[in-house]
Amino acid sequence: MFEEGLRLKSQFGAGNIYDFSLGNPNLPPPDRFHQVLRDTVSSCGANGHCYMPQSGFPQVCGAVAGYLTREQGVALTAGEVIMTCGAAGALNVIFKALLDPGDEVLTPSPCFAEYPFYADNHGGVLRTAPTRPDFTLDLAALAAAVTAKTKVLLINSPNNPTGQVYSEASLLALGELLRSKSRDLGRTIFLVSDEPYRKIVYDGTTVPSIFKAYQQSIVATSYSKDLSIAGERIGFAAVHPQARYKAEIMGAMALAIRILGFVNAPALMQRVVAELQGASVDVQAYKRKRDLLCSGLSEAGYEFRVPDGAFYLFPRAPIEDDVAFVRELQQERILTVPGSGFGAPGHIRIAYCVDDQTIVDALPGFRRVMDKLRPKEEE
Amino acid sequence: MFEEGLRLKSQFGAGNIYDFSLGNPNLPPPDRFHQVLRDTVSSCGANGHCYMPQSGFPQVCGAVAGYLTREQGVALTAGEVIMTCGAAGALNVIFKALLDPGDEVLTPSPCFAEYPFYADNHGGVLRTAPTRPDFTLDLAALAAAVTAKTKVLLINSPNNPTGQVYSEASLLALGELLRSKSRDLGRTIFLVSDEPYRKIVYDGTTVPSIFKAYQQSIVATSYSKDLSIAGERIGFAAVHPQARYKAEIMGAMALAIRILGFVNAPALMQRVVAELQGASVDVQAYKRKRDLLCSGLSEAGYEFRVPDGAFYLFPRAPIEDDVAFVRELQQERILTVPGSGFGAPGHIRIAYCVDDQTIVDALPGFRRVMDKLRPKEEE
Repeated sequence: MFEEGLRLKSQFGAGNIYDFSLGNPNLPPPDRFHQVLRDTVSSCGANGHCYMPQSGFPQVCGAVAGYLTREQGVALTAGEVIMTCGAAGALNVIFKALLDPGDEVLTPSPCFAEYPFYADNHGGVLRTAPTRPDFTLDLAALAAAVTAKTKVLLINSPNNPTGQVYSEASLLALGELLRSKSRDLGRTIFLVSDEPYRKIVYDGTTVPSIFKAYQQSIVATSYSKDLSIAGERIGFAAVHPQARYKAEIMGAMALAIRILGFVNAPALMQRVVAELQGASVDVQAYKRKRDLLCSGLSEAGYEFRVPDGAFYLFPRAPIEDDVAFVRELQQERILTVPGSGFGAPGHIRIAYCVDDQTIVDALPGFRRVMDKLRPKEEE
Repeated sequence: MFEEGLRLKSQFGAGNIYDFSLGNPNLPPPDRFHQVLRDTVSSCGANGHCYMPQSGFPQVCGAVAGYLTREQGVALTAGEVIMTCGAAGALNVIFKALLDPGDEVLTPSPCFAEYPFYADNHGGVLRTAPTRPDFTLDLAALAAAVTAKTKVLLINSPNNPTGQVYSEASLLALGELLRSKSRDLGRTIFLVSDEPYRKIVYDGTTVPSIFKAYQQSIVATSYSKDLSIAGERIGFAAVHPQARYKAEIMGAMALAIRILGFVNAPALMQRVVAELQGASVDVQAYKRKRDLLCSGLSEAGYEFRVPDGAFYLFPRAPIEDDVAFVRELQQERILTVPGSGFGAPGHIRIAYCVDDQTIVDALPGFRRVMDKLRPKEEE
């Protein structure tokens, strides 16, 4: 995607390509990020860039634990946190630690297109169960998809690609389901919550605590979107303080981060994010982009659910073949991603972490393609 | 190791533990590193921390290619370089790209203790063939160990744990062996050269070019030791410009870095190392430590080969059981690593990337243990 976007931009000029294909945050980091980065570079000393314990600098893990205690409403300590190379790094470390060959990772669909790889990397298999038509959790579908091999239930809220935020009631019900299934199967099913968009939410939406819903849970996240530093690869995994096998999981993750070749999360950025707990980019700016896009696409006849969080819109394609629809949009120099990549054919993903002007300029193209392809039965 | 060292240090006080267990560079980075880091932080702009192409910033890959062209004596371009999270990240990306289930990675032994994991992570199996008693390449042993499943021959020079640097003649002979075996087997055997210690060499030693020895080769390395920034996780892989399947390998590595969860090498450090091509810590300081240690241990009756590079000494243990010997040294609060972890029982690894004073202070303890355990036949 990235490379295809660059190719088209070099062919037509960057200003003539409307690139909605990538979740690459375009807002600047908060001002404090730059100040903290400068201060950390000055203060971290000659040996500040060396190896540290695999889990990260203890004081950094402690700062994260302190913040998580407030965010999740469950008291954490440094020993329950491992700093990672972003959320993608965290998920790979978690899966390496938890999965045995053939173990299944179950996730609601649509889901992030890389999840199947993350499970497969470590001998696991990704299984999906559909969400409801509004992309909320379908507990019955998840329950039906649990098998004797299910080791992990993976959720992502706010969701990529749908922007859906799962309600507290649905998470509590999910916790109940996992307790019951674990009991029936005589093995622990872990809940892994991939939540890098937790702070990117709109209209007073809050993202409920995972740790309050289920004890056998692990949070994986990054500072990529909070701070617009996706290229720096910094995030963490945190294990519920009352999780069964907690010590074994922490030990297995410390081994996994080493042998997978990460070794540890980047030293300088660990120190930087420790000072920026709770900070985030200007979420109102993403809300403005969302509203601009939703209002324009709605007028053009697109159908979608207005997202509660993240910076993705996931409208229905007006034709069955979403790949063909994405190709039509490309003719207007608009880059989007087919929903089939997320396990949801018949949709497209529009990443609206772009300049407002890109949205304004792309809307006529979005409209022309809709006018061309929309079923004409109402005429 | 790291955690055990910290535990003992907290028990006895850091100044009372002689920790030779870790390859954690203790020299400060070159002065220019700090200046370049400050300048890069100032100049890289609000969006300088975002995603970039998976292989890294094109200008960074270009800077690396320019330097490698001089170092390897073979002309490289940016498209042959992928920036990685250190050499460990590079090796995992390379193995993910190259290995099919059951493929074998063959390496001379003793070897870095993590290699078996790196192969296993991606469905491969590490096989070893012994080096000669002086730790030089034993071509006949390697030839005998090649099987129909050998996909990669992996070398590490200067070597961890032995400090051996393979000669140009032995590398040319290795290239000839691999060409001949590839022809016989009807499949390409790739030579992967893990060379993070390339710049840490003594007494006029030079590390010969891999690319000149064999076209089907990939270099993996990091700036961890050159610049004493091991915690920042920055390195690269570079594919020989005339390698067969070069485009496929580069594409597979760009996919691998993404799906393994690295996504890309840390953005800020990419820009920093681009400005520091060829820079290194004060190698003479490591030489001084090597000489101090070798002279003291030799007087105490230790037997070893004086290393040409890296910052490891790999002496023989005076008793057969190297783990027991390491435990005896621990009684003197001296931390080392048993050779059996590197596939060479009967040896220990001493990482001398420590303060000179640590070496001076530890020598009496090294002597006492040798006096206690050395066979007494000469009396």
